[in-house]
Amino acid sequence: MGLIIQKFGGSSVADAERIRRVAGIITDTYKSGNDVVAVVSAQGDTTDDLIEKAHEINEKPSKREMDMLLSTGEQASAALLAMAIEDLGYPVTSLTAWQIGITSDSKYSNARIKQVADERLRRELDQHKIVICAGFQGVNKYDDITTLGRGGSDTTAVAIAAALRADICKIYTDVDGVYTADPRIAKNARKLNEITYDEMLELASLGAQVLCNRSVELAKKYRVNLEVCSSFKQIPGTVVKEDVKVEKMLITGVAKDNNVTRISVIGLEDVPGVAFKLFSLLGQNNINVDIILQSIGRHGTKDISFTVASDNTQIALDVLHESYPNNVITYDENVSKVSVVGSGMQSNAGVAAKMFEALYSVGVNIQMISTSEIKISVLIDRSDANKALEAIHDAFI
Amino acid sequence: MGLIIQKFGGSSVADAERIRRVAGIITDTYKSGNDVVAVVSAQGDTTDDLIEKAHEINEKPSKREMDMLLSTGEQASAALLAMAIEDLGYPVTSLTAWQIGITSDSKYSNARIKQVADERLRRELDQHKIVICAGFQGVNKYDDITTLGRGGSDTTAVAIAAALRADICKIYTDVDGVYTADPRIAKNARKLNEITYDEMLELASLGAQVLCNRSVELAKKYRVNLEVCSSFKQIPGTVVKEDVKVEKMLITGVAKDNNVTRISVIGLEDVPGVAFKLFSLLGQNNINVDIILQSIGRHGTKDISFTVASDNTQIALDVLHESYPNNVITYDENVSKVSVVGSGMQSNAGVAAKMFEALYSVGVNIQMISTSEIKISVLIDRSDANKALEAIHDAFI
Repeated sequence: MGLIIQKFGGSSVADAERIRRVAGIITDTYKSGNDVVAVVSAQGDTTDDLIEKAHEINEKPSKREMDMLLSTGEQASAALLAMAIEDLGYPVTSLTAWQIGITSDSKYSNARIKQVADERLRRELDQHKIVICAGFQGVNKYDDITTLGRGGSDTTAVAIAAALRADICKIYTDVDGVYTADPRIAKNARKLNEITYDEMLELASLGAQVLCNRSVELAKKYRVNLEVCSSFKQIPGTVVKEDVKVEKMLITGVAKDNNVTRISVIGLEDVPGVAFKLFSLLGQNNINVDIILQSIGRHGTKDISFTVASDNTQIALDVLHESYPNNVITYDENVSKVSVVGSGMQSNAGVAAKMFEALYSVGVNIQMISTSEIKISVLIDRSDANKALEAIHDAFI
Repeated sequence: MGLIIQKFGGSSVADAERIRRVAGIITDTYKSGNDVVAVVSAQGDTTDDLIEKAHEINEKPSKREMDMLLSTGEQASAALLAMAIEDLGYPVTSLTAWQIGITSDSKYSNARIKQVADERLRRELDQHKIVICAGFQGVNKYDDITTLGRGGSDTTAVAIAAALRADICKIYTDVDGVYTADPRIAKNARKLNEITYDEMLELASLGAQVLCNRSVELAKKYRVNLEVCSSFKQIPGTVVKEDVKVEKMLITGVAKDNNVTRISVIGLEDVPGVAFKLFSLLGQNNINVDIILQSIGRHGTKDISFTVASDNTQIALDVLHESYPNNVITYDENVSKVSVVGSGMQSNAGVAAKMFEALYSVGVNIQMISTSEIKISVLIDRSDANKALEAIHDAFI
C-alpha cells in the first residue's frame, strides 16, 4: 500500500487491445490498495504521423507550433486510457501538463521541467481517483505548451514521483528489465535485480535505450526509486536506486552504440589553443563530442579525431569545412562504440586489460579508447560490434 | 482596416492543400492592414475518427474524457494552420481555449461559453501577430476541458468577436452565403446580401444548416456583425445583423427540414390538463416538441399530434408507451417541414394564404400548420417536399 507512479510508452498503448491491457495493470495496482498516477506517451506512431503532417505544410515549422501539435498525441492517449479504466468500473481522471501545473523552461521541443505542482494531483488522489497524466509535455511561463524531447514521458513520470514523494516510479517497457548486455546480441546476458543511478546513466548514454538519461538524472537528484519492468510480463524488473546490494561484480553491463560517427581534422598547426578552438566551435553549434583522440601528424602538425552522434555528422562537417578550409577532414560512419560499465571497476586495475584481451581474442581492432571512473569505451569497426560485445560480456559476466 | 474574426470549418482545413488556401485568405486580410483572429475546427473527419477510437475502448465513455479527447482535433488543426502561415512568412501564434481563457459551464459535450478573456488575445494582436484559435472548446471552473457541441466553432468565433468588439465575424463555409431557398432544390433561389438575426435564427432552426443557432443568438445579444461567405470564392457573402436595408420582400427565405417525425397519441380523455401532462412528460425527458396539433377524436376523446427531431423518435415512443399504455400511438417518419421566413410578414396578412395557394397549385396536402410572427411552417409528405419548396419559393421571390 502506497503511492505508485506508472509510466507506459507509446508501444504499450498502440491500439485498443493494448490500452485495455495497460488499464488492467493500473487497476490491479489500485485494487491492491495503492494510489496510482499513470503517465502515458502518445500511441504508437502518432508522433511520427503528426510530424509528417506538419512537414507537408511547412518544412521548417517553428518549434513552438510543433509542440502545440505534438502534445495532442499524449492528451489523446491519456483520455483513451482513462476511458478504458472507466470501462472497468474504476474512478479515473486524465490530466494534461497545464492542468497538473508541470512548468518548464521555454526551450521548445526539448524543454526541461522546472516544477510539478502537487495540488491538483493530490486533490484527485484524495478523491480516490486513478490519475492518468499526459507525458512528454510542460507549460512555460507564457502559458505555451512545450515538449520535453526524447524520452520525455519518463522524465514526466519521475518528476511527478518526486513532487508527490511516491514510493516507487515504475517504467513499463518492451523489455523486462536492465540486462548486462543486449540479450538479442549476447546470449549469456542476464537481468540485473538492482543497479545504481550512475551505472544506469552510463549505460543509457552508451546506447542501452531503456531509460532516457534526463529521467535517471532527475531520479538521482530527488532519490526516486525507479523500476524498469515489462508491460507484457508480470515479473519483477530492475530497480534503479542509490545503493544496491553488492553483487560481487566488477561490471554491471556491456553496451553498444551505433549512433556514432568518427570525424578527423588532419594537419592542424601544433601550437597551444588548437584543440580549445576546435571544440568551442563545435560547442557553439550545439554539437556534443564524445571520445577525443589527438595524435601527431606529419611535418610537425597534429591530427584531432573525435566522435559525434550520427545525426550531428552533417552539421559538424559543414561547420568544420567552413572554419578549416585548408585542412583535410575525414569521417567514418561505419563505427560503433562498445563499453563496459560498473562501479566495481573504480578499485580494480585489470578491467581495461581484460577488455582489450577479449577484443584481441576475437580479432577486433580498437580505433579509439575513452575511460571514466565507472566505464571504458572503445570505438571499433561497426561490423565487429556484435562479436566484440559478446566477447567482452562473456569475459566479465 | 479593422479587427476581423474569421472562422473556418473542418472541411475548409481537411488537408494540407486546403490549409494552405485558408492561410492565403487569412494573410490576404492581414496584408490589407487588418488585425486577424481566425478560429478553426478539427480537420475533416478527425472528430468522427476520434469518436470511433473511443468507442473501440468504451461504448459509453464519460463526456469529460470524450471532451479531453475531442479537443485535441482543434488544437492540432490550429497548430497546422499556424505552420502554414509561418510558411508564408507572417507572424502567427496558435492558442487553445485555456490559453485564451474561454471559460464555459461544466456541461461536457455541450457546454456554453461564460466568458472570453481578452488579455492574451490583445497581447498577441499588439505584437502584430495573426492569432489562430482552436474552436469548439472551453475550460470550466475545475480547469477541465469542455466542448461546445454542434457548430461550436461558430460560437467560439462569435464569442471572441464580442469580447474583442471586432468589426466583423466572417464565417467561411462551403456555400457562398444564405439563400432564399436551398439552391440545389429551388432553381430560382437567390443569395441574400443581408438578413436579420431573427430571420437567420428561424432559418437555422428550420434546417438551413449554414450557422448554428447558438452562435446567431450570441451574435444578436452582443450585436456582432456576422458574414457568411465562401472559403472557395472571393466574393461578398451574406451579412447577418440587426437592421437590414429594406429589400421590399415579404419573405427572406424558404427552408425544408427532413429531420422530423410526426407522433400522434390517439383517444386521450377530453379533460383539462391532458396536454400539459403529455408535454411535461416529454420535456422531462429532454425531448423538444415543435408543431402541435390537437383534434377531436371519436367518442368524446381527443388526439394530440406533434413533431420531434428524428433522432428523438425512439425515446419519445418509449416514454409515451410507458405512460400511455392504453392509448394507440402512431408515428410517421416520412414527413418534412417546409417553412417561409421573413420579418416582412408581420405586417402582411396574405402570406399564409399565398403559401397555401402555392401548395394547392402543385397538389400538396398539408398535414399540420404552425406559425410565428416571422415564419409559417407546414408539415407535408416527404415525397412532396422539394416540389413544395420550389412552388412556395417561386410564389414569393
